[in-house]
Amino acid sequence: MSDILGQQFIDGQRSALGQQPLQSIDARSGQPLPYVFLQADEREVQLAVEAATRAFAPFRQLSPLRRSEFLDAIAEEIDDLGDDFIALIGQETALPEARIRGERSRTTGQLRLFAHVLRRGDFLGARIDQALPQRQPLPRVDLRQYRIGVGPVAVFGASNFPLAFSTAGGDTASALAAGCPVVFKAHSGHMATADRVASAILRAAQRTGMPSGVFNMIFGAGVGQALVKAEGIKAVGFTGSLKGGRALFDLAAARAQPIPVFAEMSSINPVILLPEALQQRGTTLAAELSASVNQGVGQFCTSPGLVIGLRSPEFSAFIAEFAATMGQATPQTMLNAGTLRSYSRGLAHIAGHSGIRHLAGQAQEGNQARPQLFQADVNLLLDGDPLLQEEIFGPATVVVEVADAAQLLAVLHSLHGQLTATLIAEPTDLQRFAPVLPVLEDKVGRLLLNGYPTGVEVSDAMVHGGPYPATSDARGTSVGTLAIDRFLRPVCYQNYPDACLPEALQNRNPLGIQRLVDGQWSRLPLG
Amino acid sequence: MSDILGQQFIDGQRSALGQQPLQSIDARSGQPLPYVFLQADEREVQLAVEAATRAFAPFRQLSPLRRSEFLDAIAEEIDDLGDDFIALIGQETALPEARIRGERSRTTGQLRLFAHVLRRGDFLGARIDQALPQRQPLPRVDLRQYRIGVGPVAVFGASNFPLAFSTAGGDTASALAAGCPVVFKAHSGHMATADRVASAILRAAQRTGMPSGVFNMIFGAGVGQALVKAEGIKAVGFTGSLKGGRALFDLAAARAQPIPVFAEMSSINPVILLPEALQQRGTTLAAELSASVNQGVGQFCTSPGLVIGLRSPEFSAFIAEFAATMGQATPQTMLNAGTLRSYSRGLAHIAGHSGIRHLAGQAQEGNQARPQLFQADVNLLLDGDPLLQEEIFGPATVVVEVADAAQLLAVLHSLHGQLTATLIAEPTDLQRFAPVLPVLEDKVGRLLLNGYPTGVEVSDAMVHGGPYPATSDARGTSVGTLAIDRFLRPVCYQNYPDACLPEALQNRNPLGIQRLVDGQWSRLPLG
Repeated sequence: MSDILGQQFIDGQRSALGQQPLQSIDARSGQPLPYVFLQADEREVQLAVEAATRAFAPFRQLSPLRRSEFLDAIAEEIDDLGDDFIALIGQETALPEARIRGERSRTTGQLRLFAHVLRRGDFLGARIDQALPQRQPLPRVDLRQYRIGVGPVAVFGASNFPLAFSTAGGDTASALAAGCPVVFKAHSGHMATADRVASAILRAAQRTGMPSGVFNMIFGAGVGQALVKAEGIKAVGFTGSLKGGRALFDLAAARAQPIPVFAEMSSINPVILLPEALQQRGTTLAAELSASVNQGVGQFCTSPGLVIGLRSPEFSAFIAEFAATMGQATPQTMLNAGTLRSYSRGLAHIAGHSGIRHLAGQAQEGNQARPQLFQADVNLLLDGDPLLQEEIFGPATVVVEVADAAQLLAVLHSLHGQLTATLIAEPTDLQRFAPVLPVLEDKVGRLLLNGYPTGVEVSDAMVHGGPYPATSDARGTSVGTLAIDRFLRPVCYQNYPDACLPEALQNRNPLGIQRLVDGQWSRLPLG
Repeated sequence: MSDILGQQFIDGQRSALGQQPLQSIDARSGQPLPYVFLQADEREVQLAVEAATRAFAPFRQLSPLRRSEFLDAIAEEIDDLGDDFIALIGQETALPEARIRGERSRTTGQLRLFAHVLRRGDFLGARIDQALPQRQPLPRVDLRQYRIGVGPVAVFGASNFPLAFSTAGGDTASALAAGCPVVFKAHSGHMATADRVASAILRAAQRTGMPSGVFNMIFGAGVGQALVKAEGIKAVGFTGSLKGGRALFDLAAARAQPIPVFAEMSSINPVILLPEALQQRGTTLAAELSASVNQGVGQFCTSPGLVIGLRSPEFSAFIAEFAATMGQATPQTMLNAGTLRSYSRGLAHIAGHSGIRHLAGQAQEGNQARPQLFQADVNLLLDGDPLLQEEIFGPATVVVEVADAAQLLAVLHSLHGQLTATLIAEPTDLQRFAPVLPVLEDKVGRLLLNGYPTGVEVSDAMVHGGPYPATSDARGTSVGTLAIDRFLRPVCYQNYPDACLPEALQNRNPLGIQRLVDGQWSRLPLG
């Protein structure tokens, strides 16, 4: 295994200009692990951005095939990391081994999927309008458009996915695929893990001949602001809290040259239980929903934080069974002490409200999170109270009972933007509650039927995004191949000779990609 | 002709709650025209946003074919407006008749092009990953993605294109195509024109059965801020000054729910004259460039404001000829008195600088704009002085001489983001100055070779956009069919039955569109 030096990764080298030490912590015991990191100092933030800026021109001009080799090589290097790597992640995050191995597969699968996207070439958005010299009243010039990377991207790792939303996660993979060098801000919760992954990326960059500044990583709590303010950074990817994401968004918007921020922040992921489904399988639903809430100690952006049903004996029975199951769920260790403190604060915040009733869960104590179930008065939502709108990160959820179909619609209208919304429904429910669908569609990035939002497939059709505050920009997704779109912008060439055009736009179509030629999709070369 | 009532257009009706009168002015004489408008009051801004919000759900759920009928009908209604309409625009803007007729054709052609895009259906971005129930270790659920409108869009009309960038211009057409109702803020420079066009849109909406709030228009200088702050508005399109665009951007970013702003603002559109081209056709270039600078009184976002050449006898000769031609160009009437004042201020601002030399142009006086040519010391750009970076809106341009190829590259690196950059070059120039191309590519939305940036084709491949400050978001274009992307966001359906899916995603592919199915592009129905 490679040494964990605890230094910044800048321009393919290590850098140790800072003085402030940062300690890696064992998530289960709270004791220090034998890994100490240096917080990046301001010079190092600038050096990392400068390295990424130098790398941008050569990197973005590589053919997509060359970049796909790089992504495939990163995947190989990460897959080749040994059992010590898996054990290290477990130490830093308290995640179980099976989960870590699954997350690694997902992460390297995601890198390979973006390599496939690069070979497929449709992300280039090639469009050609050939010259029409005879057109009246004015001739048309030759116009050709494709998409290039926006420039160096700052990526902020998330605590809850030390691999899939971290150093070589979806934001990094999609930025690199787009031709954008990355400056990655490692999360303090898994710095040693990040160090191992960054070393893997560097090995992949070296053996595929990438520019030295294509990937950079810095450590430290205070460096994020300087990173987002740095002139060379042209876009930001972030996964974390609403407060943190909004702060970065505000910084980016206040720059002399504002830049886009794709922050995935806060979602309560409503699950709506419709009557016929409740009647047919209420007991099963109580068990399944409890499993979804408790999966991974509720440490998912898509964890169901709000369960809505219509007042009925069936819903009352469901609530009783749900409370029984939630009450029996076992305490588990969270990602780190800070996450547990946030969870406890979130519980205390809602538990103190007069419109909230505690249904199940042991009192919070010790260093493990205890699952909690609450019931909230529907008026909290109808009156626009913000209490229920922000997620509690952890194994807690809130049940809300609505009087009828009209009140259900009113409640759904009251919700802020979400990553997901789930309908538990039978066919007759879908007919009776048809007006619910377009309301949800307008609120979320992903609509589920008879499933649970935890579990996010990495594919072409996935959307892990949604209106604010689920994300800061509803037009993006941070999971799935469409994520690459966030870091691309169109460029048009007017009257350029074939030899000066990028391959994607040359007459003979050397990449063999699909292009929009004079309004028709085609893979044919041009005459 | 329809009556010009001077009232707001809200929810398919007229509204006159405000008290403050606004006068339409004859651009040539400066005298009042017989049209008085009421400034919208705050209630009317809210009512317009509420009407658009009510219209959103039904409008976005219409099939793309229905929306294409609406856009085609708007085009017909505008084409049917009589000679009095053309004359009215001439009165309000001082634009010549041929230009107005050309701009009308462009505007209605643009509406019809978006109608075609709606029929083509690729804007829907349909992606389908079919279920893989046997996949190991976990089955894959059925996932389907397409794109829906973001919500009501606020559009701000530009002074310089009373049709193509105004009431029924590119921002409105692309927003309506995306399924987003529009609240349009009319420009004070052509309110009667805007009134006639809004009436045409309303007739089209009525005869194609659109929701009544699909298009709304408000008048007044102070109403833009309230419009951008209104909670129901989900995106903004703007064409105008850097100051105005940035102010709206800042307002939108500071909202509780921030929204994207697509502001097209400031570009100096550098033209680089390379040596061999200068040697072969310097005299022609001086005449052509002068014509481009003076076209439409220089009132184009793409007017060439910076001309760069390499120190040489040929470039000196070019400057002399360019100065002679610019000095003979005739004064012309600008769009309105405010535009002329801004032009004069812009000239005075740069003329007073020690690094600037005045080469040609009569002293500014009277109510017409006089073409002006300046030469600037290259160090103004190399030292990062902001003086030359912001456009002077009007028939003025600045020549800069660079010492050699290396200094040319340094100057190009110093430029801020641009809508366009133009190379005037022979094949040997392109070989010798090959490193110039990627530098320009990183700065602009459109690269031209041996043409002039004035004149923007409306087509699939056009990009009228670029890095800040050319626009506030380099990922968009405000001209061409890609403009629709700005107002769309992806939504994913997981495990939805065919009957509940939008047509774009149903198995039998009733729209007959191209879709990305399991990673392959296909128009076939699914089994």
